[in-house]
Amino acid sequence: MQVLLTLNPPPFLKEDMHATFPQIYFHYEKLSAAENILPHAEIIVTYGEDLTVEHLEKAKRLKWIMVASAGLEKMPLAQIAERNILVTNARGIHKIPMAEFTIGLLLQHMKQFPVIWQQERENIWNKRVPMGELYGKTIMVVGAGAIGSEIAKLSKAFSMTTIGVNASGNSVAYFDQMLRADEIAEGLKRTDFVVSVLPSTEKTQHFFQKEHFIAMKESAVFINIGRGDVVQESVLIDALKKEEIAHAYLDVFQTEPLPADHPFWSMNNLTVTPHISSKSKQYLPRVFDIWKHNLHTYIRNGNDYLNVIDLKRGY
Amino acid sequence: MQVLLTLNPPPFLKEDMHATFPQIYFHYEKLSAAENILPHAEIIVTYGEDLTVEHLEKAKRLKWIMVASAGLEKMPLAQIAERNILVTNARGIHKIPMAEFTIGLLLQHMKQFPVIWQQERENIWNKRVPMGELYGKTIMVVGAGAIGSEIAKLSKAFSMTTIGVNASGNSVAYFDQMLRADEIAEGLKRTDFVVSVLPSTEKTQHFFQKEHFIAMKESAVFINIGRGDVVQESVLIDALKKEEIAHAYLDVFQTEPLPADHPFWSMNNLTVTPHISSKSKQYLPRVFDIWKHNLHTYIRNGNDYLNVIDLKRGY
Repeated sequence: MQVLLTLNPPPFLKEDMHATFPQIYFHYEKLSAAENILPHAEIIVTYGEDLTVEHLEKAKRLKWIMVASAGLEKMPLAQIAERNILVTNARGIHKIPMAEFTIGLLLQHMKQFPVIWQQERENIWNKRVPMGELYGKTIMVVGAGAIGSEIAKLSKAFSMTTIGVNASGNSVAYFDQMLRADEIAEGLKRTDFVVSVLPSTEKTQHFFQKEHFIAMKESAVFINIGRGDVVQESVLIDALKKEEIAHAYLDVFQTEPLPADHPFWSMNNLTVTPHISSKSKQYLPRVFDIWKHNLHTYIRNGNDYLNVIDLKRGY
Repeated sequence: MQVLLTLNPPPFLKEDMHATFPQIYFHYEKLSAAENILPHAEIIVTYGEDLTVEHLEKAKRLKWIMVASAGLEKMPLAQIAERNILVTNARGIHKIPMAEFTIGLLLQHMKQFPVIWQQERENIWNKRVPMGELYGKTIMVVGAGAIGSEIAKLSKAFSMTTIGVNASGNSVAYFDQMLRADEIAEGLKRTDFVVSVLPSTEKTQHFFQKEHFIAMKESAVFINIGRGDVVQESVLIDALKKEEIAHAYLDVFQTEPLPADHPFWSMNNLTVTPHISSKSKQYLPRVFDIWKHNLHTYIRNGNDYLNVIDLKRGY
């Protein structure tokens, strides 16, 4: 059996895979250079951004596509469905790094680490830094799914009150209270930290409105690790200039990379991070855990695949 | 009844206390200016650093000293014991801020926040920052008491393995494994984060030796939030220069404030914080929670005091 990986994993992952599946021949090649391999490949492992209809036509023996990310937007799903090709992905692997990143931001905000590091650079011993706590605070996660639940799990360990917001208002693990999207104004008044994990859809575009920021506490912190278009830049800039909230931490933007002359960079109560909340040295190892599990299943013709995509729904 | 507070709490705490205990007359005065109050005070609330034998002699009616900190080293304990004066303190209120501070340092280390903030200052969008996780790491807390257990509690929420070290090796909540002090060398090899919460005693002085740092992983992080004399400065500097460990975060030092020309300030793999791990806006509110509980007990002549000091043992 031949498998084509369009990514080049580090040696320790390759060696582990080769030792675990000695009967399989693994090719590591970009699709653009895989002309001769495609007709023989039963399985393709890809980040999902490179696979075209033309590749698919050449891959006559293809039975399974393992997508090494959560996104499928760029895949020719209709043609894949026609051929009844199995598609699995790597959803669920972002929740740990994103939750740790979020709590890390909250702690460095409450403990004033940027102020302390500035003092340190100047050899200044100054204890008069007003330090707060996460203990007893209230966090609202808007877009409460697997990632939001992981954020809530860590928040509960810090004795925070957790409010989750999703379309249905149905309960999600580790949230003390759930609100539907149309109910959040009341919850915002009680909230210290507002975290958006919302994806970009028609319903979420410009979800956060002027009145939401007015409803928030003046000490509130807004964190966006979902998608940039959930709030209009002008609305957020206005709220921060009027000090309706204390600080915004943005990891996602309407235009990425954020242009070097964008006003966000120079605002004191806004911090820019370059879309890295899910970055982790554990990313590929976790992809490979899912991939190896599914490859065992494939070999023994089992049916316990992880993360199978329903090609009609597209997720 | 008259009570002397040698500290000046913020208005909201005073107002709460006056409303809760309308029958009591509260004086707020430094001991040096309390000549006329001392003879009438039944109770003194103090940080414990200002009370002398002379004050004690003037305070003829004194029955109870509430120390608004954990330290009693500067108190005339023998004379207090002679007069059978009750002493209570505020131990236990440091664990939440110190545990949050510790996890905050670990997260900002693994997420490379100082690198990201430097990029941000220069309007640089650079995603190539190697970010790690707390998930799956091993943390060792040396001096595993109430504070250490709180650190371990948070660490478990991040799915870390927790190793506690204390004199007896007896189990402490939230630690997966306990080691006695003489057993730590083996544990250090498996440890990613070594946190010292050790107090300063004869037994803990220079506790961390050259060979301990050699035993640690090259990627290990050493955090000291206990007392500065648990490691000789020259030993630590040597270990960091030889890159036997990756980084040290020090909040406590043999000499405080750390002199402006001290070599620690300029080392890239050592970060200085100015003895602030226990700092918190919640400090006095927590002191007053204990104080109010005990004052209710005192008034009704009860016996459920919190944090009574055994004056023979001194803690």
